[in-house]
Amino acid sequence: MQTTATLVATDETDRLIAADKVVGTSVYNLRSEHLGSIYSLMVDKISGQVAYAVMSFGGFLGIGESYHPLPWRVLKYDLRMGGYVVDLDRRRLEGAPSYSASSLPDWSDREYGHRIDDYYGVPPYGI
Amino acid sequence: MQTTATLVATDETDRLIAADKVVGTSVYNLRSEHLGSIYSLMVDKISGQVAYAVMSFGGFLGIGESYHPLPWRVLKYDLRMGGYVVDLDRRRLEGAPSYSASSLPDWSDREYGHRIDDYYGVPPYGI
Repeated sequence: MQTTATLVATDETDRLIAADKVVGTSVYNLRSEHLGSIYSLMVDKISGQVAYAVMSFGGFLGIGESYHPLPWRVLKYDLRMGGYVVDLDRRRLEGAPSYSASSLPDWSDREYGHRIDDYYGVPPYGI
Repeated sequence: MQTTATLVATDETDRLIAADKVVGTSVYNLRSEHLGSIYSLMVDKISGQVAYAVMSFGGFLGIGESYHPLPWRVLKYDLRMGGYVVDLDRRRLEGAPSYSASSLPDWSDREYGHRIDDYYGVPPYGI
């Protein structure tokens, strides 16, 4: 019984995390290659659901960095890796919707989100 | 038709927000009294659902401030107010589960979350 309770508690520990701590978490692909890290979370104000996690990729100290919004549902948290794992090789990542610090996307354009969802083959968010 | 499209676009604009922008958003009660502001979001790592929003309350420049975790579902975003509205008078807020910077809660204790849910009369999170 004690063992079960401990396992449950551990699961809970790993379950809730402050949003500002998600930022900076590493993202890997299925080959355990480091792809980037979480830069920000786009949250649905009404439902409280994280719709997109924006991954930063490449660059050095923010220079030359690109930002890839990923639908939350393509990210799987991997307790063993201590980060998110996504089924995405580098080549596919390079062709994915992305932006730079000097070309921020217009999140108010619903087509923008839909292009992201399309690319990753998930149902359009918010429909 | 154009009007409808514009309304939809506006709705979308107001729908997604970066998590770090939610932080700092004002929280009001039904009488439009300012109760506090969002200090942090506790996110479910697996589902991406915001489980609790921690509201900071009182104090000055962080001194004497108290932190009240609120179940996300008790917060309603009010476009007119430009903030969250919660059905909670000050007295009820003062009796609610809270902590100070020197007594951080143990989020790994599932009972902690359940006490919050209980207080606000919402179903226990994560069950």
